[in-house]
Amino acid sequence: MSAHQDFLAYVDKNADKFIQRLADAVKIKSISGDAGCRQETIDMGHWLQKQLDALGVTTVLRDLGQCPIQGQLLDLPPAILGRLGEDPKKKTVLIYGHYDVQPALKSDGWDTDPFELVRKDDQLFGRGSTDDKGPIMGWLNVLEAHRSQGLELPVNLRFCFEGMEESGSEGLDELIEKEVAEGEFFKGVDCVCISDNYWLNTRTPALTYGLRGIAYFGIHVSGPGQDLHSGLFGRMVHEPMTDLVKLMSKLVDHNGNILVPGIEDMVPLPDEHELKLYTKMDYSLADVAEAAGASIALSDQKETVLMGRMRNPSLSLHGIQGAFSEPGCKTVIPSKVSGKFSLRLVPPQTPELVIPLVTGYIQSEFAKLNSKNKMTVEYLHGGKPWVSDVNHWNFEAAKRAIETIWKKTPDYTREGGSIPVTLTFAEKLGVNVLLLPMGRADDGAHSTNEKLDISNFIEGTKVLGTYLYEVSALSGVA
Amino acid sequence: MSAHQDFLAYVDKNADKFIQRLADAVKIKSISGDAGCRQETIDMGHWLQKQLDALGVTTVLRDLGQCPIQGQLLDLPPAILGRLGEDPKKKTVLIYGHYDVQPALKSDGWDTDPFELVRKDDQLFGRGSTDDKGPIMGWLNVLEAHRSQGLELPVNLRFCFEGMEESGSEGLDELIEKEVAEGEFFKGVDCVCISDNYWLNTRTPALTYGLRGIAYFGIHVSGPGQDLHSGLFGRMVHEPMTDLVKLMSKLVDHNGNILVPGIEDMVPLPDEHELKLYTKMDYSLADVAEAAGASIALSDQKETVLMGRMRNPSLSLHGIQGAFSEPGCKTVIPSKVSGKFSLRLVPPQTPELVIPLVTGYIQSEFAKLNSKNKMTVEYLHGGKPWVSDVNHWNFEAAKRAIETIWKKTPDYTREGGSIPVTLTFAEKLGVNVLLLPMGRADDGAHSTNEKLDISNFIEGTKVLGTYLYEVSALSGVA
Ligand SMILES: [Zn+2]
Ligand SMILES: [Zn+2]
Ligand SMILES: [Zn+2]
Ligand SMILES: [Zn+2]
Repeated sequence: MSAHQDFLAYVDKNADKFIQRLADAVKIKSISGDAGCRQETIDMGHWLQKQLDALGVTTVLRDLGQCPIQGQLLDLPPAILGRLGEDPKKKTVLIYGHYDVQPALKSDGWDTDPFELVRKDDQLFGRGSTDDKGPIMGWLNVLEAHRSQGLELPVNLRFCFEGMEESGSEGLDELIEKEVAEGEFFKGVDCVCISDNYWLNTRTPALTYGLRGIAYFGIHVSGPGQDLHSGLFGRMVHEPMTDLVKLMSKLVDHNGNILVPGIEDMVPLPDEHELKLYTKMDYSLADVAEAAGASIALSDQKETVLMGRMRNPSLSLHGIQGAFSEPGCKTVIPSKVSGKFSLRLVPPQTPELVIPLVTGYIQSEFAKLNSKNKMTVEYLHGGKPWVSDVNHWNFEAAKRAIETIWKKTPDYTREGGSIPVTLTFAEKLGVNVLLLPMGRADDGAHSTNEKLDISNFIEGTKVLGTYLYEVSALSGVA
Repeated sequence: MSAHQDFLAYVDKNADKFIQRLADAVKIKSISGDAGCRQETIDMGHWLQKQLDALGVTTVLRDLGQCPIQGQLLDLPPAILGRLGEDPKKKTVLIYGHYDVQPALKSDGWDTDPFELVRKDDQLFGRGSTDDKGPIMGWLNVLEAHRSQGLELPVNLRFCFEGMEESGSEGLDELIEKEVAEGEFFKGVDCVCISDNYWLNTRTPALTYGLRGIAYFGIHVSGPGQDLHSGLFGRMVHEPMTDLVKLMSKLVDHNGNILVPGIEDMVPLPDEHELKLYTKMDYSLADVAEAAGASIALSDQKETVLMGRMRNPSLSLHGIQGAFSEPGCKTVIPSKVSGKFSLRLVPPQTPELVIPLVTGYIQSEFAKLNSKNKMTVEYLHGGKPWVSDVNHWNFEAAKRAIETIWKKTPDYTREGGSIPVTLTFAEKLGVNVLLLPMGRADDGAHSTNEKLDISNFIEGTKVLGTYLYEVSALSGVA
């Protein structure tokens, strides 16, 4: 079932109006990580609720309590829950988005005021344009196109918009857990759609079915009672830095292989079918060179590089706390140093499974050093990886929508990073979760001059609407 | 020839007066590293000149020009050169000291005002009490004891007191070079005596005959055009931190052995005679544990630990610049990191000799990594080691003075750190240089609550005077 032609025509005709609504949204400085912007972040929630109400959605604001920020205890921005349609013959799709944004100052290097949506050629510049106000406005566009023309939506919709995503999604997991209960907002949801990531490149739409998890560790080595002078103590004592650097050097090899025994073995090798996925992806070594700013890919095989990011675990050394880290030449023997590193995890790895392997390995390597220093391994935080079933009708619907609107087959991608709410929805609701990105790889979500291409906004709106029709068609109930 | 009894008696009788002069000196905030104290540092030079003049020394102030400090171009504190005695039948002893001090604030953790000399029990607390105003005052005490009693000094004296030692001895090397010429202050000097270091412990006087040199390096590894996110790029690219940590881990082993080929081999093993020196030293593992604040000595053999500091080279890893070094958990792949390390050198090692070994080794280790990152090794600064001849009459005179006054045989020590002026005097004057410490190991020269024991000040004054008599006797010309 293809989307109603009146829907698609309305989107084209009202592009300027849609852009204006996005501009109104960008104007509101909903920086969740800035205490001084907390009221505006809450205002943004109210603005969004009003928009939804005007489009016929039944909404409630869920108070998430208070949270300390920059030394103040402030009210959290509310979560907005919405309901539209109760037809038991239709599928129910839950839409997630976040209305808060990353900090931005013109002086960070923006060409224009980050909180004024500026149109240049075919692009819209402004904080939140692509992350994540653009996608939320996309859904509002879909609703407006139907409501104003009296068109019936092919599915029931549920909405979950939060205002703390950029600051740890405070309170959201508990809320989702509660709303799954009988009579609550998320009861009866058949699938979830999240638009909060990006295409793999600037050319080809993507569907994302996996996210890596993470396990972040600190190795703490201490010995002397205070920092020592290397002239007086060099070669008299066990130096914590010597031990720490030795341990850190044993974690990952120069090809990116994780040296902690048991970690690599947990991950099954790709079969032919999976390998083909990476071969088919619209991606080249030039793309990684451009994104990284240098030709430093670990392999000359595009498939190996893509699998390195998407389906293999990784281990990165982030730095050392407590050692000399300034410019200049200090002749210090630091007394207490902490090495920071993290693993990105893929199924079936979980923090619970890797913590004992990592801790045990580092302890056994430290024992070999016969050092009189003290060493502890600390697990600092983490999260599980997530992989979805791409053969589910939820993904198939999105694929068809993309093929219809973009005339291209999407890349099936997995992200190297994490979007924790994805896992929460998958686990708490027990339904298929789809990541359906609206923006491109070069949108600069968290950096200066964040942008959204107008085509991504407008065609993206059509994809979202068409996806709903395909869900309805594929799930065979409408 | 033992010291004149009237000299020794005068010192005992005038202890309080001497302490008062030290208090006057401590009061003047001659912090050479603080632009706001530059005038007071210069004032300190004038105060000292006046003291010397009053004691019959012919002095000149040598203008050392200007130097930038904390963004200002300021006059350097003057060097004070002094001359007392021209008897061709006497030996000529050159005395060095510095009248500037380290910074100090009560709020750093001092129990009392650092610039008020406070007497508690048998100790004198105050900035500069031991480093290096106490020893300079010791020489003034010797002069006063002779002049006020009409006693003839057994040697000719030359003085070189500077006000920039704690800030790199700006301009001093050039001055020394000039003053060696015919008709200048240091012409005809027979030996040098420097009191600017400390006993090995709190019990036994020491004579110091060696200092280690240093060669300080940076390893710079860069790759990505900007910092990357480990979720997006982990296992896609060569990470500079992975390479750097590998290289740093190859420099020194957990027993303190330097792994750069050729470095250890340069240093001859100690013979039996030298080994005995370390066995005889009044030092125990408890001393190193107390100084380091923990039982982390590299060996249970006192000799090995002492040789590690005094006669063997060492390599310390100081830290990494450019990586994540804050508290918390940042998931960054740093784009550009610099590892800092230094070697302490002993004869016959020099920076010139070790630079190619270190650089070549790191380059060959980096080549093994097959990394697409860029790596350079930079030699940042350094200085040669110094070892003196302990059988010279200069040392023998000091030994006899110590035995006479302290009734103890001194420890013959080598310092792990460097006092660059020592090497300059040795090389430019071509005479024996003696380090004759006045203070104890626990004086806290550069830390809070710096102190000098009254006995070290008063008996130390006697040692300085007696040393002059012994020089005269031993060198067989008076
Ligand atoms: Zn986002
Ligand atoms: Zn974001
Ligand atoms: Zn000093
Ligand atoms: Zn000093």
